[in-house]
Order: sequence, then structure tokens, then C-alpha cells
Amino acid sequence: MTVKFFYRCSLCDSEYDASQVTYTCPKDEGNLNVILDYEQIRSSITPSHIFQSQEYSIWRYEPLLPVSDPGYQFTPYHWVGMTPVFAVPVLAQKLGLSQLWIKDESRNPTASFKDRASAVVVARAREIGAEVVVAASTGNAGAALAGMAAATGQKAVIFAPKTAPQAKIAQLLVFGAQVILVDGNYDSAFDLTIQAAQEFGWYCRNTGYNPFTAEGKKTAAFEIWEWWEKTRNQYPEFKRLNVFVSVGDGNIISGIHKGFKDLLTLGWLDQMPRIFGVQSTGSAAIYNAFQAGSEEIQPVAANTLADSISVDLPRDGVRAVRAARESGGSYLAVEDEKILAAIATLGKVGIFAEPAGATSYAGLVQAVEKGLVNEEDAVLVLNTGSGLKDVRAAMQAVPQAPIIEPSLEALKRHLSK
Amino acid sequence: MTVKFFYRCSLCDSEYDASQVTYTCPKDEGNLNVILDYEQIRSSITPSHIFQSQEYSIWRYEPLLPVSDPGYQFTPYHWVGMTPVFAVPVLAQKLGLSQLWIKDESRNPTASFKDRASAVVVARAREIGAEVVVAASTGNAGAALAGMAAATGQKAVIFAPKTAPQAKIAQLLVFGAQVILVDGNYDSAFDLTIQAAQEFGWYCRNTGYNPFTAEGKKTAAFEIWEWWEKTRNQYPEFKRLNVFVSVGDGNIISGIHKGFKDLLTLGWLDQMPRIFGVQSTGSAAIYNAFQAGSEEIQPVAANTLADSISVDLPRDGVRAVRAARESGGSYLAVEDEKILAAIATLGKVGIFAEPAGATSYAGLVQAVEKGLVNEEDAVLVLNTGSGLKDVRAAMQAVPQAPIIEPSLEALKRHLSK
Repeated sequence: MTVKFFYRCSLCDSEYDASQVTYTCPKDEGNLNVILDYEQIRSSITPSHIFQSQEYSIWRYEPLLPVSDPGYQFTPYHWVGMTPVFAVPVLAQKLGLSQLWIKDESRNPTASFKDRASAVVVARAREIGAEVVVAASTGNAGAALAGMAAATGQKAVIFAPKTAPQAKIAQLLVFGAQVILVDGNYDSAFDLTIQAAQEFGWYCRNTGYNPFTAEGKKTAAFEIWEWWEKTRNQYPEFKRLNVFVSVGDGNIISGIHKGFKDLLTLGWLDQMPRIFGVQSTGSAAIYNAFQAGSEEIQPVAANTLADSISVDLPRDGVRAVRAARESGGSYLAVEDEKILAAIATLGKVGIFAEPAGATSYAGLVQAVEKGLVNEEDAVLVLNTGSGLKDVRAAMQAVPQAPIIEPSLEALKRHLSK
Repeated sequence: MTVKFFYRCSLCDSEYDASQVTYTCPKDEGNLNVILDYEQIRSSITPSHIFQSQEYSIWRYEPLLPVSDPGYQFTPYHWVGMTPVFAVPVLAQKLGLSQLWIKDESRNPTASFKDRASAVVVARAREIGAEVVVAASTGNAGAALAGMAAATGQKAVIFAPKTAPQAKIAQLLVFGAQVILVDGNYDSAFDLTIQAAQEFGWYCRNTGYNPFTAEGKKTAAFEIWEWWEKTRNQYPEFKRLNVFVSVGDGNIISGIHKGFKDLLTLGWLDQMPRIFGVQSTGSAAIYNAFQAGSEEIQPVAANTLADSISVDLPRDGVRAVRAARESGGSYLAVEDEKILAAIATLGKVGIFAEPAGATSYAGLVQAVEKGLVNEEDAVLVLNTGSGLKDVRAAMQAVPQAPIIEPSLEALKRHLSK
């Protein structure tokens, strides 16, 4: 039985039945929040049902999702989520924290957090009978849609700027998506996607536009909650959980906030974790609004090597600002060189993050310097994507390797230097 | 309690205590098989104990391993193995098979099968008190050693030819390994590794040299066995399980064969699955020996885009030949263009494989053409590594994407072509 839900505009609070609108608020184009029938959920399930589930994927949280699990059980589509949480005491000690955890989203099927959103959007596409799902993307979101669509036999169309890295385009093509490059930037691809969806009746996955992406992303909050409920008794010293997440268009942080809000509303979570958003100083539109105490998102001319969070105009900025403000968290902005340093730091404990994935850790370093978190805080940092997604950036994060003659003498000379 | 074991040379059957030798047979340099105390295992555990284990990693098979789980539970080190098995009915139908499964090793921590070997070798290094683990590698084995070592705080040194792709070297460096490039080829790096290990007391992980790599790799056979024991009742039509695996130096296929042999010896497996090794025609030394009915491995001048299985002189060739011969399987050799086609085919069901990973599927296609398997055969194909490891090859597997003006009119013109 699928949970009943309706939409509420995040700007004007107008409410709509699920049958009335598909994407944003018809009045002001505000992002729509999915409001579940929490009474229905409470009367049908308890947290312990979920904690005992034998389903090790996001679909263990199906009772809290506005879509049904469409099956595809023995495919990569199904194996999304339930990503590992690693303890990294070495880094905790370095930062003066009592303990530190990293949730590694690179273990998702297409190696990024975005699989959560694509899984739920593809489920929704199936429910509404959409034959084609379309998205504008140059990176992880496109790969996630293409991969999830391939695994379910769903048709996917991806629009990308022609300047997108060949490598990322190759991944989309291998998954069999119809890839169309546009002679323009990401924004023009985004706009064309929306026009094409209207014209051809395609279902549009665009982030910060389709309300179901955040519903997919909120499953990370559910997993953090479940993990913490099972872990916190071992750490009575911690007063509150703090979650650090990289922010580009603002949809991941909004989705995580939404997940925690669902749990609070259900009475299953006793305290909202503090949520810290981390942007690159080269792409800090949401950070700027937060610091100005505003919800007005002013576009920037984004320029950062963390391509997955490089955004001129964040499409989910308002909710992203609120995620930190309403949770007692904050926003941080870190320079690209700090992001590179974070890649190297995480690598040394065995976690290979792409630049956007390591940005959250760079933000934690700054938060510690600023005294925003200390040894009384439990801290969890999200790595949102695999370093294999952007090896060129990784090469900038580390010094070059030396070259020697293949002889023991040459090796000894080198080692004695 | 660790299982007792000794070594037996795969060539001359000489036996050695674990304290007597470390790598290959002192008499003829044959690869050493690890012979477990099967009576001890049988008296301490049954398959149902394992099947009910709550440990979702290779360490659920600790009672069948010659090393103890060294802990590191909440690190990437621990989360190796228990990779998903996907059913791909679309491909089964295409090939005229009743069903087809793909076990996806790209979901391991460093995105390849090699994590299994590195996890067990690092465990062994800890047991013998080795401060440094060293390996020659340009690719997945090096990344796996570097990643597993980073996760456990173990020091790793990797020797690679200076011609190795910068991208793969970057991954080693990010994991904090000491990377030394040699002005020579892989064979010279391999030889220098062995010299350096002797000189400095380092522990050498080299594949086809260190007996513990196959012990790590055999865990894939254990997982296949457990999966099949839990699945086969649904498929009474199948007479026998057939496993397809890509072959380079021969250590993966040897490890899988070893795992099944352990289970046969224990009486826990009623029939050895047929094992099919697949090589690239450009690197077919083991295939050649198999076809000649010989165990003499003649080196070739390897030239294939499947870099992970591009090997002049396979270091585990004899056992690799036997894996197919003794199991009733066979060897196949496929051209690079068939490997590229297999990448595209697997991509369309949502699995992104590197060339060596897709080679096994290309071999299955050929095996079906030759009538080596048919609809009475249960077939499982291993994908040994992620396509993100070699995006340049992926680009060769698919046609280029078109470029259009960012307008609805241009899109309509394009779609009507």
C-alpha cells in the first residue's frame, strides 16, 4: 500500500493534489514539498519494523516513500542505498573530535549519491506510465538516471552541454541512454529539457524541479537515523548529531532535511540533527544567502574544480538555506585547494572521493577551526561520489611519483634521499 | 581460532609448513596451494552456520580462510565481497539460455575483484608482523592494496612502469601508498618488487607469487556457492552451474577453482561447477596452453585494450589451465572488438564494466555460439571491475553523441531524422 501524499509549495504554502501538478508550483515556481499522510504511516508501522527489515536497500523505507518499490529486485536498480558508515578515529583525533564517521555514497550502483533520486524518480515514472524520462546533466545525476533506467528497461534521454567531459558522456552512452549534446551551457540544456518534456510528454527528472528527487535523497537521512539509533548508546558523551554535506544546487541537503523532518513529524526522531552545508568558494550562492540572513538566491559565475557542485543558479536554494537554518546548522565555503587537501586526507584512510564528495570534509575542518563543532558533537560527513568519477582532480591532490631505473641500487639511492 | 594449514607445490607436490616458506616452492618456483585442515573445519562448523551469518563481507567465510579477521570493522577494508548477483533475463533470452546471472565485483571498495586478495594479504601481513607490503601493479591490484592498506594504517609500496596511465597512478597516490615508477615494463617492476622485498624484509603481494592472493580470491567461489545453494531450488531445469571468468595472469580463475575445491573436500558442494576462462586473443597464453592440451605456458607479446588482463607471461598459468580442465570447463579467446561490444551490452542492462570485466561476457557469447553451454546450463558471469576504471575504452564501445542547437526546433529536426 503506497502512502498517500499531496504537495505543498515551499514558497507560498499552496497545496495541490498529486494529480494537479507534476513539477513546481504553478503560482510562483516554488519547489514542491511532498507531504505524506503521517497518520497513515504511524498506524501501519513502527521504527522497529524497519530496523528488523531484511531489505538492504532504500526500499526498506518504502513505507515512508511516496512511491512503491517497482521490483527489479535482482538488478543494479534495486541495490541503491544502505551505504556503509565508516569510523575514522585517526581523523577525529586530528580534528580534536571524540569520534567521526563518514558515510560513503560512492558504493551506490553508479558510484554517487544521485542513484537514490533516480531510483525513486524511475519508480514514479513507472507509476504514472511515463515512457521516457529526461534530464539535463553533465555528471552524476545523468549517470544515475541512465544506469537506473538501463537496469529497468526504461527509456532515458539526457541533455548535456557539448563542453561536458567526454568521460562522463561515455558513461551515459554505455548505459544506453539517448544522449544529446547542446551547443550551449548547462542552463540552456536545463531549459531545453523542460521544453522537450512538455512537448513530447516525457517525464523530467531535473533536480530542483521534480519533487521526487528530494524524496529519493531523503533516504540518506533515514539511513543516518537508523544507524545513529543503533549506535548512539555507545557514545553517551555526545549531545547532538551533526551532519556535513556538500551543496551545489541544494537538492541533496534539502532531501536530507526532508527525511529528518518526516521522522520528527512521525515522532520517531527526538532531536533534529544539525545540518551543515558546504560549498566551494567558487560556487557559493547558497552560502551567500545564508550568511546574508536571506532566502534570496543571487546567481554567481561558478568556477570550481568540484564540478558536481559547480552551479550558477541553484535550483533548490531556498529549501537548502532553510535546511541549515532550521536545524541549527550553518553554511561554510571552502577554497578549491582545501577540497584537494580533503581528497588526499580521505584517501589516506581508504576513501577515494571526488572533489564534491571531499568538500564536506573540508567544511568540517573549517567548522572545527571556527569552533562550530567540538568534542561534544557526534559528526557524520557524507562522501557523495567516487574519486573514479574525476581522476584528473585526484591527480592535482597528490604529488607526482618519482621515476627510477629498475634496479635495487637505484631503489636504494632513491630511498636514502 | 584460525584454521591450520600447510603449503603444497602445484608442480612437484612438495609440502611445507607455513613457517618454512613465504612465497613459491624453493625447488621449482611452483605456485603453492594452501592446504587447510579440513577435518578441523568440518568438526567446528557447518554450511548452515555460514548461511545464517550476519556478517556481510568475505569475513563470513573466516572459518575457511588461513587468516583471522584482523578487525577494522568500520572501515572500507572490512566491506569487501558479498557483491550482488544480478539476473539478466533480457540477455539470457538473447543468448537462448533459460536464465543468466552476473556477479558484479565492481561494488567492492576500490571497484574491482582484487580487493578480495588484498584484504587477505593485508591480514596475513599483520599476522606475520610485516611493516610494509609491496606489490608490482599498474592497475586494480595496486589500487586494492593501496586502498586496503590505507584503511588499516598499513604501509604500502607500489612499483609501476612509468608508462602506466596517470589516472591509475593517481588512485594509488591518493590512497597514500609510496608509489615508485620504474623506467621499464611490468616485468621489470615485478622483478624489482621481489628483490626489494628480500632486501628490506617487505611482504610481497605479487599475484601468482604470494600464496594468499588465491586464498582471498576463493571467497568469490564461496559466495557463488552460497548464492546457488539458496537459489537452485527455483531452477530444477538446470543440470549444472557454469562460471565464466576473465583471465590474465590466471590467479582469479585459480582462486575460484581453489574455493570450489575446498568446498568439495569438505563435502559441502556436491558437484564442481564448470569453469570457463576467457582471454583476449591479444593476450592468450593460457588459452594457447589449454588448447594444446599442455601445461607449458609460452609467453606472448600481449596487445589488448583489456589492460587488466594484458599479460606476456601469466604467473599462475598452470593452475589456471587446470581450473578449466579439471572442472570440465574450457578456455575461450575473444577479440577486442567483441570485448567492446560486451561493454555496450552490459551497459544496457545497467552494469558498467571495464574491458577485462566485460571479457567474460564476450566469452559466454562465443561459448553459446560453439554450443558449449545451452538452455540446460545455469550460467554466472563475473564482472571483475568497474567501467570507471577505464573510461577511454568505454568511449570506444559506443557511438558519439550528436550536437544540436539548444532549441526545441533543432531538437525536433534531430529526432525526426
